[in-house]
Amino acid sequence: MDAFKDFEAANERYVETFGAKGALPLPPAKKLTIVTCMDARIDPAAHLGIKEGDAHVIRNAGGVCKEALRSIVISQQLLGTQEIAVFHHTDCGMLTFTNSDIKSLLEERYPAAADEVKDIDFLPFANLEQSVKDDVQFLKQHPLVLKDIRITGWIYEVETGKVRQIV
Amino acid sequence: MDAFKDFEAANERYVETFGAKGALPLPPAKKLTIVTCMDARIDPAAHLGIKEGDAHVIRNAGGVCKEALRSIVISQQLLGTQEIAVFHHTDCGMLTFTNSDIKSLLEERYPAAADEVKDIDFLPFANLEQSVKDDVQFLKQHPLVLKDIRITGWIYEVETGKVRQIV
Repeated sequence: MDAFKDFEAANERYVETFGAKGALPLPPAKKLTIVTCMDARIDPAAHLGIKEGDAHVIRNAGGVCKEALRSIVISQQLLGTQEIAVFHHTDCGMLTFTNSDIKSLLEERYPAAADEVKDIDFLPFANLEQSVKDDVQFLKQHPLVLKDIRITGWIYEVETGKVRQIV
Repeated sequence: MDAFKDFEAANERYVETFGAKGALPLPPAKKLTIVTCMDARIDPAAHLGIKEGDAHVIRNAGGVCKEALRSIVISQQLLGTQEIAVFHHTDCGMLTFTNSDIKSLLEERYPAAADEVKDIDFLPFANLEQSVKDDVQFLKQHPLVLKDIRITGWIYEVETGKVRQIV
């Protein structure tokens, strides 16, 4: 495949119009952290109007906040962010399997890696709206996440591009 | 602050031109997974020419592959990706502290959360180029990452917008 071979041409065009972005400071201008899924259909900068310099963007399979915690603590304690927006999305892969499904599959494909498989929690979820509420609650209750800040929870609709606030 | 109040107006404009993107399939068209930092100055879709539907994008503090492993396994085993591009970047916050620095700071600010602080590895790194090589090597050697696939390692320059291949 070598998809990386497309990077250089695209990057040359980006560099040509880079301009003043080279002087942006490290701390996010909007003091905002976004957590969302790695899903290929999602471009958070595009669907939220986020520009370079505006916000930290954390992405993983599901947009799971438990795994994002290390990054959130660094974002808040070292780089001054004071607001979090959590996004999960419709048609998410994380709704389609359980830990036991994926572990069985991996044990079959990689019998020699049983120990590594056992140690991973794949963090799937069964209910989309509830998963957003649970993740916001996890952050609100965590002793290392700033108190008295805005933490909102959202669903992104891959079918329409629309965002819908849940919390 | 309430930066989230800007989401809705930006999202309305995005939805207006969403068009055929609503029919994109879940598996990434380029069979590609990108790992990069949460840094606010980085817009991977823009600097690499990645469009909605093309690639999984995993982002965390540093673009650390150890933490991205769960997502990479899901990406490869359930959604068919067969190539990984790892990006770290110049002027990264992860180069500016050690685990012991941030743990001392957190223990001082959150004395009641000493147990939580002890349990977190903040995964900082001291040398940018070496950190890219180490992360690519981690993936190449991991028993749950596909063998015989392309895994490249890159540095993104926040000063110029340019990408530079390391591995």
